[in-house]
Amino acid sequence: MSFEKNVRRVEPYVAGEQPGDKDIIKLNTNECPYPPSPEVLKAAGELSLERLRLYPDMNARKLVDALARYCQVPSSRIFAGVGSDDVLSLAFMTFFNSDKPVLFPDVTYSFYEVWARLHGISYELCPLDESFRIRKEDYLRPNGGIIFPNPNAPTGILESADTIEEIVRENPDSVVIIDEAYIDFGGRSVMELTDRYENLLVVQTFSKSRSLAGMRIGFAVGSEKLIGYLKDVKFSFNSYTLNLPSIELGAAAVSDDAYFRETVNKIIRTRRRAARELSGLGFSLTDSMGNFLFASHETVPASELFAALRSSGIYVRYWNRPRIDNCLRITVGTDGQMDRLVEFLKKYLSDRRKKND
Amino acid sequence: MSFEKNVRRVEPYVAGEQPGDKDIIKLNTNECPYPPSPEVLKAAGELSLERLRLYPDMNARKLVDALARYCQVPSSRIFAGVGSDDVLSLAFMTFFNSDKPVLFPDVTYSFYEVWARLHGISYELCPLDESFRIRKEDYLRPNGGIIFPNPNAPTGILESADTIEEIVRENPDSVVIIDEAYIDFGGRSVMELTDRYENLLVVQTFSKSRSLAGMRIGFAVGSEKLIGYLKDVKFSFNSYTLNLPSIELGAAAVSDDAYFRETVNKIIRTRRRAARELSGLGFSLTDSMGNFLFASHETVPASELFAALRSSGIYVRYWNRPRIDNCLRITVGTDGQMDRLVEFLKKYLSDRRKKND
Repeated sequence: MSFEKNVRRVEPYVAGEQPGDKDIIKLNTNECPYPPSPEVLKAAGELSLERLRLYPDMNARKLVDALARYCQVPSSRIFAGVGSDDVLSLAFMTFFNSDKPVLFPDVTYSFYEVWARLHGISYELCPLDESFRIRKEDYLRPNGGIIFPNPNAPTGILESADTIEEIVRENPDSVVIIDEAYIDFGGRSVMELTDRYENLLVVQTFSKSRSLAGMRIGFAVGSEKLIGYLKDVKFSFNSYTLNLPSIELGAAAVSDDAYFRETVNKIIRTRRRAARELSGLGFSLTDSMGNFLFASHETVPASELFAALRSSGIYVRYWNRPRIDNCLRITVGTDGQMDRLVEFLKKYLSDRRKKND
Repeated sequence: MSFEKNVRRVEPYVAGEQPGDKDIIKLNTNECPYPPSPEVLKAAGELSLERLRLYPDMNARKLVDALARYCQVPSSRIFAGVGSDDVLSLAFMTFFNSDKPVLFPDVTYSFYEVWARLHGISYELCPLDESFRIRKEDYLRPNGGIIFPNPNAPTGILESADTIEEIVRENPDSVVIIDEAYIDFGGRSVMELTDRYENLLVVQTFSKSRSLAGMRIGFAVGSEKLIGYLKDVKFSFNSYTLNLPSIELGAAAVSDDAYFRETVNKIIRTRRRAARELSGLGFSLTDSMGNFLFASHETVPASELFAALRSSGIYVRYWNRPRIDNCLRITVGTDGQMDRLVEFLKKYLSDRRKKND
């Protein structure tokens, strides 16, 4: 049989490991260490069998309305999807159809390159400066679209709203997408700029600050025009994507603002403390505004630390890629988890020093 | 601003209406009139908040294993997705990359054309014969892939396993996809042929016979090779699609085989009875093996009946398209719902005759 000659061949993405073992300290995929709001469990208990037999509301109105209230924009300016990956991939497909290249940083979320290739979009990587900051001028030239996360991943570095506004303002011919997956951990969303700039799309996720990675919910805020285009493309090839539990549990999560703020604040406090302690062990860290730290040690290679941590049951993330191959990305877990991480590293580094003496 | 010149413009698909009004008799989108298994509600109540904070198992193992037992194949031969639309669109992208056209019937599920265009795949429509049957010889010529539903939609006509096997056997250079969305209502799946034919992919959905349209779950059965390619492409651009409730509630639905059979049998009985009664009112019907009837009246245009039914709160489906513009697709509801449909039509047709006398 030769049907295989027409099969699309790809390089599969390697996601962070999802170990089954409960004793593992899992600091490798930026999940929230705290459970979602109790309101979410309540909503799960209230799911109706009668409604499960029906197609879900294709506009996910209950979730979209909850988000509209949260974002203080009309519902017509919100688009919800199956995780921010779904929303972002659709946005690439919808907005990036120029002959000019789409621009994004060289060190950033690795799926941007994947989606650009998937949708046949030409792109150019803009090197971050030596301290991993965006060079604004890179984005002030002809392009077919712009996307970057703020704060950036995996560096955690936050760019100012002024920088972003200038990039958006100076690119009236492009759609600018700001991926705010990690904005809730100390940054301030630029979603209010979507009131004034029709070409700005802000994307967020429920997987991090809302503790709902297991639900796959993401959303975009933009001008009515941009959101309308996204919907048109989405409905043209798949009417029903968000299932009923996503709509119901997602809306419940948004409704519990107090819980959300409490969770986020706990993570910010733990991040500060862990950063201080790692710093004391000889790590240099970026000023991460995400729910993760980005750290490299003054003497010990990241690849070695990654392997040592892993064999002791502490999973963090390491990429063997240019510019970041001496860095670890460490999700901020609970205080207890971070204590165990720090304890292990303290002992490992000290044992290593003794051995080398 | 001119960012709009790079926006992808599409013709949005018009899905069957989803009226909010509870008094509507909704026979327009082929949902199941019976709720899902009580096991599904139990699984919803047992969802754990702790697990919702984590990314779902990207292999959806619990669901895939349940399906593997049901289909009597190894788990490596099952692929699960967000509804069969998601699975089918991915299969188009993965398997239909030839210079030769993909073949499918002229009267069939309208999304095939949509996905072909979306993924830039050339295609040719093969006209069904005058009784809406597939002409086998249309599919025995060079092509870049083959897809059709069995039973077909919206006609409900079932082709034999022998016809399908011949098409699969005679096309070793193409992947053949059989879309079995409606197979459980009286047909027999060809999934056992996937043991012998590496180029056959069989796709099914939880939206019809498993009463879970609201969950968005679909799956494919095929050779280990085909399923492997599907997974590679899927993981290359979106690791996590099925959320935790889909995995848990989906597995629960598959586990309750007795309930599934009972539901399906009720629908088959109601379909037979309703077909007989509509026939008595002057309708001619295909021998539908789906959970719907496909009917045209001897004297009254379908468009007129569609509008009359609609204004009385009974929603059915009508397409103003060549060859089927005098047909109604009527989902098989409960006996009570079908009684109300028949009663209304009886009175409408009788009133109309009187008026015209």
